Amino acid sequence: MAITLGELAVRYGLELSGDPGLTVQAVAPLASATPGTLTFCSDAKYRRQLAATRATVVVLAREMLPDCPVAALISPHPYAAYARIAAGIYPEAAVTAGAAPGASIAASARVAASAWIGPNAAIGAGAVIGERCFVGPSSVIEEGARLGDDCRLQASVTICHGVTIGRRCVFKPGAVIGSDGFGFAPAPDGFVKVPHLGAVRIGDDVEVGANTTIDRGTIEDTVIEDGVKLDNLVQVGHNCRIGAHTVIAGCVGISGSTIIGRRCMIGGAVGIVGHLEIGDEVVVTGYSMVTRSLPGPGTYSSGIPAIQTMDWRRTVARLRRLDALERRLAQLELGAGGAGQETDE
Amino acid sequence: MAITLGELAVRYGLELSGDPGLTVQAVAPLASATPGTLTFCSDAKYRRQLAATRATVVVLAREMLPDCPVAALISPHPYAAYARIAAGIYPEAAVTAGAAPGASIAASARVAASAWIGPNAAIGAGAVIGERCFVGPSSVIEEGARLGDDCRLQASVTICHGVTIGRRCVFKPGAVIGSDGFGFAPAPDGFVKVPHLGAVRIGDDVEVGANTTIDRGTIEDTVIEDGVKLDNLVQVGHNCRIGAHTVIAGCVGISGSTIIGRRCMIGGAVGIVGHLEIGDEVVVTGYSMVTRSLPGPGTYSSGIPAIQTMDWRRTVARLRRLDALERRLAQLELGAGGAGQETDE
Amino acid sequence: MAITLGELAVRYGLELSGDPGLTVQAVAPLASATPGTLTFCSDAKYRRQLAATRATVVVLAREMLPDCPVAALISPHPYAAYARIAAGIYPEAAVTAGAAPGASIAASARVAASAWIGPNAAIGAGAVIGERCFVGPSSVIEEGARLGDDCRLQASVTICHGVTIGRRCVFKPGAVIGSDGFGFAPAPDGFVKVPHLGAVRIGDDVEVGANTTIDRGTIEDTVIEDGVKLDNLVQVGHNCRIGAHTVIAGCVGISGSTIIGRRCMIGGAVGIVGHLEIGDEVVVTGYSMVTRSLPGPGTYSSGIPAIQTMDWRRTVARLRRLDALERRLAQLELGAGGAGQETDE
Repeated sequence: MAITLGELAVRYGLELSGDPGLTVQAVAPLASATPGTLTFCSDAKYRRQLAATRATVVVLAREMLPDCPVAALISPHPYAAYARIAAGIYPEAAVTAGAAPGASIAASARVAASAWIGPNAAIGAGAVIGERCFVGPSSVIEEGARLGDDCRLQASVTICHGVTIGRRCVFKPGAVIGSDGFGFAPAPDGFVKVPHLGAVRIGDDVEVGANTTIDRGTIEDTVIEDGVKLDNLVQVGHNCRIGAHTVIAGCVGISGSTIIGRRCMIGGAVGIVGHLEIGDEVVVTGYSMVTRSLPGPGTYSSGIPAIQTMDWRRTVARLRRLDALERRLAQLELGAGGAGQETDE
Repeated sequence: MAITLGELAVRYGLELSGDPGLTVQAVAPLASATPGTLTFCSDAKYRRQLAATRATVVVLAREMLPDCPVAALISPHPYAAYARIAAGIYPEAAVTAGAAPGASIAASARVAASAWIGPNAAIGAGAVIGERCFVGPSSVIEEGARLGDDCRLQASVTICHGVTIGRRCVFKPGAVIGSDGFGFAPAPDGFVKVPHLGAVRIGDDVEVGANTTIDRGTIEDTVIEDGVKLDNLVQVGHNCRIGAHTVIAGCVGISGSTIIGRRCMIGGAVGIVGHLEIGDEVVVTGYSMVTRSLPGPGTYSSGIPAIQTMDWRRTVARLRRLDALERRLAQLELGAGGAGQETDE
Repeated sequence: MAITLGELAVRYGLELSGDPGLTVQAVAPLASATPGTLTFCSDAKYRRQLAATRATVVVLAREMLPDCPVAALISPHPYAAYARIAAGIYPEAAVTAGAAPGASIAASARVAASAWIGPNAAIGAGAVIGERCFVGPSSVIEEGARLGDDCRLQASVTICHGVTIGRRCVFKPGAVIGSDGFGFAPAPDGFVKVPHLGAVRIGDDVEVGANTTIDRGTIEDTVIEDGVKLDNLVQVGHNCRIGAHTVIAGCVGISGSTIIGRRCMIGGAVGIVGHLEIGDEVVVTGYSMVTRSLPGPGTYSSGIPAIQTMDWRRTVARLRRLDALERRLAQLELGAGGAGQETDE
């Protein structure tokens, strides 16, 4: 489906530099684009690739325009503009209404007529499935769970009993929403399992990655607010609340009862201890461990970049001797007549 | 279902302070409880919330009693007592006997008459399913696997061939028990896959988190002893043995052939190298890397708490200069007539 | 099935020390082997166990021969030789041709007659399944995906639309190949989802662990080359390329657009930032964070081994004071007439 640059400029509110009658029918990477394609350049470090591109048109910021050898669509947010145009060129297929043979739907479930229940999906008693929802193959919606309109459960997603989900949410394969949290009360005769009587409440426009897990609350609900994006293999503990439009990268673990603010960005493989409060607009860089509440806005870190193993081993050995080092320094200071500074213990 | 405080005191062996004729029919959080509910207070830091609670009764330790404005059920382990009472007020539904349409059960499988096989679950040849087991939707029990009585596989759980599981075990959605471990023998022409001829043996009262994976052994079995609790997204390598009543938090990775003792507590996101022995009652705090055997009891750590990124970057830069720092110090010591201390290498 | 040592020597090209007429019919661990079994000894640290073994024959390197009290099969790569012999003694069952009741196969899918589609598996429109493929229970192959010959999807594996897979690949339960990556373009009114128009291309002889996730590319494909082995709970971001015969241990997270070379070894729980290039034959030891491109060959680290928590707390406190330490040292150096060395900022 070819579309003219003029039409793109109008539809997406972009300024066009170049011939409005040119057409594109596909997108391509900057470096390997061919005529007939649209591409984008969102970073000045790709200036050289831009100068050599063979795309028909490039979506870019105004300051890159002088380097662009072809037509350009100008946006202050070129990557977002590209994303919107690409979604238009490659529209998602509309959801087919109905249910596949092999889908198992409880008699008391209420499934919108426009929704699709895929092969071998199971919908429990009293569950509610909104308009145009796509419930992919082998997905499980337990009793009493509720999906708002236009949700997409790609495949093998599990939504546990009583979980409520807003509109336009996306769940990638293997995501598990609302299983019991890790709650065991110590007693003289071992651990007593703590009943998980809360559920999970998810807002609108939330995206949950593949094999990501979100535990239900013990008494009250675990809450994921509007627009939150969770990458793959993320763990969200019971009773957490994640504020609107916060994004959390892959392999992050968040212990129970932690409150995360709005518009935070949590890097990959971060670990967050339980019962903390993270403010709004907090950035935690990848591979950090968060052990106390963090006011926002602010940027926090504790990850150490890898270096050559031999050098690193030497660093670790010296870390072990920091104690002695400090004492030797204090000794010298005493000798030099300086006041020895306090050391802990 | 209302229950009197007097009945709770008798049934759970607790001392009651207050009117035994009062009734509760629900549980609630300390801060938002309303009349008719039971709550708990297990930590003195919630003293102020306790003083203001509107619950009908609070489960608490004796030393908190003076601060309690309402009736109290007194226990030395208030959280465990609360957990038991809550489980009584909100009993799990009994397992329905039978099999859903769409369940696939091999002719040679032996499924107890009181067990439930959910929609689209698959039970392989020769598998044995104990009394009152709940095999949730889309779960897979491969050939020859055996579940003891009263196990619960919530949904989309995979139990691989020949795995044996004790009684009252809980498997949350997406758990995978007994797939082949990561074993490849280097050879001149690439890697040779090592056959995994062992299985996984799991004791009684084990709980396995969502999307957690436990690999089968290479020759002998991987073993998970009684009462072990694994959180979500945990990886247990081939040939490991995890001792009874050990609890392991989310996102932990345990490499192959490591032996972990009894009653250990492994914090979130810990990584444990293979072929180690961790003693009984070892605590490893979150985000630590364990690279050598640890005698028990003991508490071990290596996680670094996040600080402001600018400060952290400075710390990392100084870490890189520790070497030079130590040499400068030795130089000064020589000048001061002190004996320079040995440095490695 | 008993096999003579003579036959093993011939079949696997090994030198035999001992009676070629002896037979074995099982494998066993070195320490607990009994007559009639074959075992292996691949490390000199097991010399004492070797000297006491009761196996009929041990696969070992020549230098261990003097310590072997029984027959021996000699190989420069004893573990690989053992793996091959064990695979011969315990052959995998041949794949049954056909489809289970409850499998859902789109009319336009092309499934080889020799392939097996298990219970409740779903094969989408236009998908292609090669000869002797095993598609286990509850697996999902979306539209247009292609499996080469002899692939094994154990159970509950998801292969998303348009993904192409080579021959002899193994996917353990819960693996997810080709779901959309974590791509959101910031815009003034929130995040815009970036369409993922690429797919995933996987070579021959690739093994993917349980609950491991590999994201599809944004414009071009994510690529996993021949012979790559991924352990459980690994995350591979969109647009990555992983070179042939690279092995990646459990719980590793690789951000998007990172290129990893051939024959690399990435240890457990490593985190790798996006848009990097890792050379060939790079080793990253467990629990390291990789934040910049690494030339190969080379070995890199940043993980810190756990020590007793009290000692570790003291180390962390001193880390926080490194700044002051360095300043105190410079002060002393000035007093000693030495040239104060530069500090950052």
